[in-house]
Amino acid sequence: MDRMSYLDNVRTIPPRRIWADMDARAVHGEHLTLGILELEPNGHVPEHSHPNEQIGVLVRGSLTWRIGDQTEDLTPGATWCIPGGVPHEANAGPDGAVLIEGFSPPRQDWHRFEPKAAGAPRWPG
Amino acid sequence: MDRMSYLDNVRTIPPRRIWADMDARAVHGEHLTLGILELEPNGHVPEHSHPNEQIGVLVRGSLTWRIGDQTEDLTPGATWCIPGGVPHEANAGPDGAVLIEGFSPPRQDWHRFEPKAAGAPRWPG
Repeated sequence: MDRMSYLDNVRTIPPRRIWADMDARAVHGEHLTLGILELEPNGHVPEHSHPNEQIGVLVRGSLTWRIGDQTEDLTPGATWCIPGGVPHEANAGPDGAVLIEGFSPPRQDWHRFEPKAAGAPRWPG
Repeated sequence: MDRMSYLDNVRTIPPRRIWADMDARAVHGEHLTLGILELEPNGHVPEHSHPNEQIGVLVRGSLTWRIGDQTEDLTPGATWCIPGGVPHEANAGPDGAVLIEGFSPPRQDWHRFEPKAAGAPRWPG
């Protein structure tokens, strides 16, 4: 799909390894980024924070979020809203986790990670 | 879940009827809104535009998007990025459609629609 298109597909967006255990496929706009993120089985995202607000929903698998001083085990349909600057970390369950998240402002920092070949995403399918 | 929580769930967020054929469950932040939107079987969203940038992914069902002068039939995994001000309209297929979309700035205009009782969402489950 050419770059001038309004449309794309999770299957053709090259993933980037934004954490040791996490791939992100992203659609970047002017004001926000929408990411489809895959965390490996039993994968871990270490505590971090960023100025970007982050609102997401768990699509597949299971996930334990620690956000600020709140910790909760989540299943698909769970949502979160992480204000900019609030530390958070995540641990996936044995089947991993697929998250869809919006970030604003956009995650321009993700461009520093090299795109990988567009392999088959774990979601959908 | 109390209002001070970072966490919520599609199952407990009251839907709002933002179009004749569409319910939206939304998580609103300071900089963006994440919406889980359900379009009824063969449902229609008439052409409209708004200043909010809109980036989304089709989660379930099928959808024909017209965005500007581009029209395409979509299946789950399809993504779109609609800049502010670009007219768009949507038609769902016979099984309806579930969309997850980020908007920035937030969709404060959605607050004018009355929340309905938090019924069972069509996704997940």
